[in-house]
Amino acid sequence: MIHNVVLLGAGNLATQLAKALSANGIKIISVYSRTETSAQKLANIVNSQFCIDVSQIPQNADLYILATSDSAHLSVLQALTFTPQKLVHTAGSVPLEILNGYAKSTGVFYPFQTFSKSRNVSFKNIPVLIESKESNLREELLTLAGNISDRVEIMESDKRKFLHLSAVFVCNFVNHLYDLGQELTNSAGIDFSLLHPLIMETAEKIKTLSPREAQTGPAVRMDTNIIGQQEALLNEKCPDLVEIYSKLSRSIFNYANK
Amino acid sequence: MIHNVVLLGAGNLATQLAKALSANGIKIISVYSRTETSAQKLANIVNSQFCIDVSQIPQNADLYILATSDSAHLSVLQALTFTPQKLVHTAGSVPLEILNGYAKSTGVFYPFQTFSKSRNVSFKNIPVLIESKESNLREELLTLAGNISDRVEIMESDKRKFLHLSAVFVCNFVNHLYDLGQELTNSAGIDFSLLHPLIMETAEKIKTLSPREAQTGPAVRMDTNIIGQQEALLNEKCPDLVEIYSKLSRSIFNYANK
Repeated sequence: MIHNVVLLGAGNLATQLAKALSANGIKIISVYSRTETSAQKLANIVNSQFCIDVSQIPQNADLYILATSDSAHLSVLQALTFTPQKLVHTAGSVPLEILNGYAKSTGVFYPFQTFSKSRNVSFKNIPVLIESKESNLREELLTLAGNISDRVEIMESDKRKFLHLSAVFVCNFVNHLYDLGQELTNSAGIDFSLLHPLIMETAEKIKTLSPREAQTGPAVRMDTNIIGQQEALLNEKCPDLVEIYSKLSRSIFNYANK
Repeated sequence: MIHNVVLLGAGNLATQLAKALSANGIKIISVYSRTETSAQKLANIVNSQFCIDVSQIPQNADLYILATSDSAHLSVLQALTFTPQKLVHTAGSVPLEILNGYAKSTGVFYPFQTFSKSRNVSFKNIPVLIESKESNLREELLTLAGNISDRVEIMESDKRKFLHLSAVFVCNFVNHLYDLGQELTNSAGIDFSLLHPLIMETAEKIKTLSPREAQTGPAVRMDTNIIGQQEALLNEKCPDLVEIYSKLSRSIFNYANK
């Protein structure tokens, strides 16, 4: 059983994960971050120690959770001054094997959500994807994840990277389209909050209809009159959006007629 | 005061609007549609008459609501055998002037939402944008809209078309990205419903953070390692998505560094 953990990282994901674990009876022994203010801030929230020097990381934790950005993984791992018993990373597109040689037992604990430091999320609905070649650690990770989430599944690296890639489409790209929508409303002096109900309904809708069935708008029916008008509007106010508009309109039409 | 209406059209928007008006004490006198099953079905729901011949449209309604697809507007208008007192259309990108000459008083009643026949929506949160050059009709439309929605605003055609264009980005294009996400999860044998919490949180987030602030993922930090891996995955499984992936990633990065 995992009773306590060390968090390696104090970013968005580390912050929300530490809060959820702490709120569910898992002791956070220490938070490590190169950035003192980040480490201290998170340590204060979850009532733990913190350190900014890898050599000061406590060596007696049940589990070490690597939750830095992907690009900092190797520098943290290579700096470790001891070999943890159990170590997991939390990244979608990073294979389990990156931890090889850095701990006795290794795994992945991937909470599938977008995290911001300033925005608390309820972990209950967040799927947590677990991977480990060792059945003991796998069971412990399933139990740990089950403490904070109602949806825990085993998923191996090859599949997880597709899950992460799909997240880029439905989260990162979608959010960017919200940003482009705001660019347009700003350019026309329209309050962006008028779009909130539409944005929520578009997201809600695909719980009961497939996205293919839910598709509406000028592109799906190739309404060339409206499409031409809208391209002209974009050319006038936001010319850098014309290309994305045309590509996505064409793609919608192609998919509707697949 | 508008006590009763005739609906010209029985599609997604007409269906949801007729239900909302009917539930709020407005009598639907008749539903006109070229498609008998559609007209009859909606008429049954809102306890009204229906007709499939323009010449049979009752001439005594307080208001005529043109809620067909944009492309059918003119054919319905030109077929009318009388000149209504008050006539509105319900379209985002169609100017008020299209109704000139077809009624004594004309206006726009634009519920800003995505509608499906099979999915009921609560009108309370749906913004309704009103336009009319005549103050009497404008006031009556504001009152009518206020019966069904808590957010009613006046917006003229030139601004409304930008609102509609922004809807294409945050609804139609966003829904298409959900579709592409499902394409990816299907190709990897992943249950698409794993993405629902992420999709909902992405939509919720921008009520409290601007989309620019909320942006996460590999593109915003130009993580060329992950981006290269993901382009390779797409090339292997869904090559037709590579171009959209690259364009949107580049656009995210450009906006983050504006």
